[in-house]
Amino acid sequence: MMTTEYLKTVRRFVKAELSGDARQLDELAEKPSEVYEKFRETGLANWWLPEELGGRGLGLEDGVEIVNEIAYGDAGVAFTLFISVLGTTMVQLYGSDDLKARYLRPMAERGSFCATLGSERTAGSELNKIETVATREGGDLVISGEKFFSTNTDFADFLVVIARSAEDPEDYLAVVVPRDTPGVEIVKRWDVIGLRASHTYQVRLDRVRVPAGNRLEGSGLRLLEIGLNASRILIAATALGIARRVRDHCMLYAKAKPFRDGTLLDSPVFAQQLGQMEMQIDVMKSHLLRAGRDFDRIMTDPDAAALFARQGTLKSALTAKMFCGQTGWSVASAGSEMFGGLGYTHDLPIGKLLRDIRYVSVVEGGDEVMRELVFGRYVVPVLRRT
Amino acid sequence: MMTTEYLKTVRRFVKAELSGDARQLDELAEKPSEVYEKFRETGLANWWLPEELGGRGLGLEDGVEIVNEIAYGDAGVAFTLFISVLGTTMVQLYGSDDLKARYLRPMAERGSFCATLGSERTAGSELNKIETVATREGGDLVISGEKFFSTNTDFADFLVVIARSAEDPEDYLAVVVPRDTPGVEIVKRWDVIGLRASHTYQVRLDRVRVPAGNRLEGSGLRLLEIGLNASRILIAATALGIARRVRDHCMLYAKAKPFRDGTLLDSPVFAQQLGQMEMQIDVMKSHLLRAGRDFDRIMTDPDAAALFARQGTLKSALTAKMFCGQTGWSVASAGSEMFGGLGYTHDLPIGKLLRDIRYVSVVEGGDEVMRELVFGRYVVPVLRRT
Amino acid sequence: MMTTEYLKTVRRFVKAELSGDARQLDELAEKPSEVYEKFRETGLANWWLPEELGGRGLGLEDGVEIVNEIAYGDAGVAFTLFISVLGTTMVQLYGSDDLKARYLRPMAERGSFCATLGSERTAGSELNKIETVATREGGDLVISGEKFFSTNTDFADFLVVIARSAEDPEDYLAVVVPRDTPGVEIVKRWDVIGLRASHTYQVRLDRVRVPAGNRLEGSGLRLLEIGLNASRILIAATALGIARRVRDHCMLYAKAKPFRDGTLLDSPVFAQQLGQMEMQIDVMKSHLLRAGRDFDRIMTDPDAAALFARQGTLKSALTAKMFCGQTGWSVASAGSEMFGGLGYTHDLPIGKLLRDIRYVSVVEGGDEVMRELVFGRYVVPVLRRT
Amino acid sequence: MMTTEYLKTVRRFVKAELSGDARQLDELAEKPSEVYEKFRETGLANWWLPEELGGRGLGLEDGVEIVNEIAYGDAGVAFTLFISVLGTTMVQLYGSDDLKARYLRPMAERGSFCATLGSERTAGSELNKIETVATREGGDLVISGEKFFSTNTDFADFLVVIARSAEDPEDYLAVVVPRDTPGVEIVKRWDVIGLRASHTYQVRLDRVRVPAGNRLEGSGLRLLEIGLNASRILIAATALGIARRVRDHCMLYAKAKPFRDGTLLDSPVFAQQLGQMEMQIDVMKSHLLRAGRDFDRIMTDPDAAALFARQGTLKSALTAKMFCGQTGWSVASAGSEMFGGLGYTHDLPIGKLLRDIRYVSVVEGGDEVMRELVFGRYVVPVLRRT
Repeated sequence: MMTTEYLKTVRRFVKAELSGDARQLDELAEKPSEVYEKFRETGLANWWLPEELGGRGLGLEDGVEIVNEIAYGDAGVAFTLFISVLGTTMVQLYGSDDLKARYLRPMAERGSFCATLGSERTAGSELNKIETVATREGGDLVISGEKFFSTNTDFADFLVVIARSAEDPEDYLAVVVPRDTPGVEIVKRWDVIGLRASHTYQVRLDRVRVPAGNRLEGSGLRLLEIGLNASRILIAATALGIARRVRDHCMLYAKAKPFRDGTLLDSPVFAQQLGQMEMQIDVMKSHLLRAGRDFDRIMTDPDAAALFARQGTLKSALTAKMFCGQTGWSVASAGSEMFGGLGYTHDLPIGKLLRDIRYVSVVEGGDEVMRELVFGRYVVPVLRRT
Repeated sequence: MMTTEYLKTVRRFVKAELSGDARQLDELAEKPSEVYEKFRETGLANWWLPEELGGRGLGLEDGVEIVNEIAYGDAGVAFTLFISVLGTTMVQLYGSDDLKARYLRPMAERGSFCATLGSERTAGSELNKIETVATREGGDLVISGEKFFSTNTDFADFLVVIARSAEDPEDYLAVVVPRDTPGVEIVKRWDVIGLRASHTYQVRLDRVRVPAGNRLEGSGLRLLEIGLNASRILIAATALGIARRVRDHCMLYAKAKPFRDGTLLDSPVFAQQLGQMEMQIDVMKSHLLRAGRDFDRIMTDPDAAALFARQGTLKSALTAKMFCGQTGWSVASAGSEMFGGLGYTHDLPIGKLLRDIRYVSVVEGGDEVMRELVFGRYVVPVLRRT
Repeated sequence: MMTTEYLKTVRRFVKAELSGDARQLDELAEKPSEVYEKFRETGLANWWLPEELGGRGLGLEDGVEIVNEIAYGDAGVAFTLFISVLGTTMVQLYGSDDLKARYLRPMAERGSFCATLGSERTAGSELNKIETVATREGGDLVISGEKFFSTNTDFADFLVVIARSAEDPEDYLAVVVPRDTPGVEIVKRWDVIGLRASHTYQVRLDRVRVPAGNRLEGSGLRLLEIGLNASRILIAATALGIARRVRDHCMLYAKAKPFRDGTLLDSPVFAQQLGQMEMQIDVMKSHLLRAGRDFDRIMTDPDAAALFARQGTLKSALTAKMFCGQTGWSVASAGSEMFGGLGYTHDLPIGKLLRDIRYVSVVEGGDEVMRELVFGRYVVPVLRRT
Repeated sequence: MMTTEYLKTVRRFVKAELSGDARQLDELAEKPSEVYEKFRETGLANWWLPEELGGRGLGLEDGVEIVNEIAYGDAGVAFTLFISVLGTTMVQLYGSDDLKARYLRPMAERGSFCATLGSERTAGSELNKIETVATREGGDLVISGEKFFSTNTDFADFLVVIARSAEDPEDYLAVVVPRDTPGVEIVKRWDVIGLRASHTYQVRLDRVRVPAGNRLEGSGLRLLEIGLNASRILIAATALGIARRVRDHCMLYAKAKPFRDGTLLDSPVFAQQLGQMEMQIDVMKSHLLRAGRDFDRIMTDPDAAALFARQGTLKSALTAKMFCGQTGWSVASAGSEMFGGLGYTHDLPIGKLLRDIRYVSVVEGGDEVMRELVFGRYVVPVLRRT
């Protein structure tokens, strides 16, 4: 378990850096805000990287707590800070020692970023349709294609690219590509409706050449699935942070809002609404921590790579994203009706919180995809039902 | 019933003026966009004003259809175009012939605007707490106070101000105040999260002097309640327009989106989602038209003023706003999950539609206020239950 | 429009016959309760049969009001009293004059019943899979098969049987079969969980022989679809009656239930719950009446048979059943939480109301079927979207 | 952690005793069914009683698993088997050693029952209004009053009665009363709508005399609150068992149900529904286990009595009951629409499951009470928010 000290550090960071005017973080700033530099100074950047590579070695259960706290401040900042876990998990489990030394160790030291390039314009929920192709040329792999949504790419150290093998179209690869490799080209940055402190790009790969040893071991689609276990749980955890923020804003507002002879805090109807909200928050937290432990149980096993290869997508990672997406939306929707007309203005943060939380049910697979996976992997096989 | 010709005119207007890039209408432009000028040219501006005052004399059932169409294009434009009905209804029913001639007739001719100034910072859902005061000084009324949310004020011909009598604090007045009366001062324009083509202001009234004859007959709070019947139904109607727009965007997207061996249109799950959405849209429409007829039935009665004074708030106006607010939010929420990551960007309009539709459950009384009114007026009195 | 007198008669009937101990009507009595005899005495039995056949000639909009009132008393009684409309609508539109004289006229006179035999064990939502076969033998049709759910069959005057043609498996027939025809055999009565005053049977048809002229004109599946327009709208209307009963029970209970220093009626939370419920009831009613009018508009056209053959299933019939099923369930679910432990006993009627209302979303096509039909018929064809 | 062996035993019991015809358990049998004798034979009756009193000493986290399994078979049986925990928890924490030896030890040995008598006709959610009075007479307490809902009373070894002190109306007592004490009189057994294998009674106490030492230490209301922590969590756990049963019934049905060219299992819409259901089940389980651990953490502390006296009602006990009640209802509601007309008959168990699961949101405080407690105890005090 994470030392309480770490969590206090995170809270201090949030208080100092993310409690001021939210507008700045809502602005789609051109360069990553200096807030990331500040987080680096806490020594917790990329907190999940293993100690043997110079990292903090914190598990995903701890990660849920950390992301919960940062997202309370700003979900876009949280997303930027944890989304590298998707790529690093793949490299950590399925990369050669050499790859780990060359790419993960520096990330641990410098608190820098990596990006994952999976989805394409016509291959969102159906990743087996990707058209990015990796061709073997001597000892190299040459990759060409266009990736639709990829976060942190522009300022990442390296990318993990999912491609189809030119030699065998049924074979998918996950390949480590240094950001500065010739042919990696940012097409545009997306103008997103929320999480505007984060940076998501459309990226073109034009005959990008890397050594064949940069390929991770195993099917690229399976590896992506495994990495998504970590990122989906942490995406879900941002919903918890935002929901708690919504609740606390409701309480602040209620304390000041005249109602009958007192304040809104005295209203039995308000009490019902907040009681329901708190229940939802409490359940989100139970489930997120359980999902974190499920992941950690495998990840800390000496046989983690093999176990994950057999397991693929974790049930609790899928259900955490679904549940927190749906429940967070319900909390934010309810919250957005509590502030009267003022809640319809940018004078209050609720509009931003609503936009921010929307991403949870949208990125890394919408609920239809989640439900289909849960059904196919965990309901149909009778033995896996619990 | 409205001639089909009118409705065609509205659709032509929407197609010509509101079908381009939504960003412009989403920009909080300083001056009302020229789109309003274009609407004036259709001859339908303020379509509800009575024929004897030079207006089109269309009823609220027709109004529902018109607003439905305009809101399909842009809800902020729709709101700007119909919200004057709140004030004009009060003047039409409870103003002297002289007031009507001086204020409504020019509005009919010029297609200009009026504004209503009701809520205050500490008197939102509890309007009996307003602190704006009207003092009798000779043949004049002198009004002072600060109003929190008022739409169209800056460019309105006149305002209908709700104030408390200085002489009798239990007496509330509704008073017609020409916009250019000295002492009417715009404090600020609100930076709203949606409906950004509309203009809502905070307004200060500093010893604003008008002739006593500018007072409308009856209790200002009751009159406001009566005027809100019209505006609440039309606010609800914007939800219908937006929901139809969401549906049509889903269909457009689905037609182009590859899915399995065809397009998303072939997906049984998508069919279920759209089938549910269409049901919700269909029911909204039934109820809105019925609410419009309920209003028209009284409004076209020779005794309308007395009947409305007895009736106050109409059940179907309350339930229309509640139902369309809730259902519209449900439609837009579902819609916002259908576009994958693209739906999280400004490349698609869904983010704007979600922000726009949110206002329905927020302005002119949130759902708590609606429910309380429905319960107190239409459930407790056994004889009024149906 | 129905004379108010008729509606008063219905209310008197409900008060006299359906306001006592609900347990009797909840008992699955062997023979139809004498309550049906009492309804016959009002002269309103089969109120929808046309005047030229000796009936009352009331439209479906009136039917919605009547069913709403009866279902307020008992939904099983209501269902028994109106479900014949499914069969009579087919006969009225697509039967020969001779069939109408022989079968509808006596029903109008005697207030008796007819039954429709459509679904089969393996052909519920997919009616094109039915295996009941009608074979042409000389001037007769001979029908064999087994029908799964059919209401009123045992005591009906005649049945409308949907069968597949032995000669052309793509041809479906709707055939009038007198109840006492040899070979019509009741397999069992279903032990239903609600609507227990009604009688639904599994029926075997063993070489049932009728004259070929008993066939109705047109495809049996299309005719069934057309008849279902009427029954689905009236099924939906029972949800309205039950929901109103739930509301009134909540109010009765609240008036007597001590709460803080007064009764539950004073609770702001209760006010919110009932306000929401009343809104839902109000909207159900608007939509049901509109659906009734949609049906009546075609039914009263001289070309009704052709118009309906072109139109098939009406959008508002589908959406009324979906909406009232969903909303009624929501009202009854909320209601069932309002009575504390007492509501979990048979001392209060809420348990029965919950069981009764459940059927609305289940019979004559579940919501999936409704959504699929709405999507395929009214969303995909752009021109039919409104 | 419970040995896997125990859980296997429970599953064998469920398979052997609760997997046959559910109708028998749905019949409100006069005497507790012999199923309880069978459970006793497993040696797990009253599994939570501490080892030092001859019990199994299993914690509440284990209890969640056990109740989950039994409720999968029949929720009424589960309720009967665990509800004694409400009374025994109070005695274990706040009874003298003598009381524990005389009452808990025999329960552990014989697998018998105890009952708690709290609520009264006019004191359901407001327990401070109870009118049952305990009067000090010499070394005895004499109790008179009438209790509304009390489960297991008739065949319990002893009752824990909550009464108001005759000497000090602000003082509430919890008193152990042997079942066979003169004056304990069963007024009636409630005819409940679900959980019909359980037995709940209305009970009169007419000058029931017990030694003063039978009083438990502390305020009766606070003690009740503490005992309810255990029973509420286990009530919530029945929702999990029922929901899993609903899911498995859906799967069984789907496997056999023809659909298009295959079975319902191939339907993408069905996959979505079951995927959502599985998510809900998964989250219920996470939260229930966490609530069980929260309880166990205090209960296993040497200072448990003092800690619980300070803490009173646990947040996760409240939120578990709310969440599982709401979510279980959602699962069962969805399930009840999946079986077509057959699901509306007693041929399938879904009707019973729906009636059974309803109790979760109703007994031991409805959701309003839960929300109010969560708000007052865990949202208003900023320091307890997480």
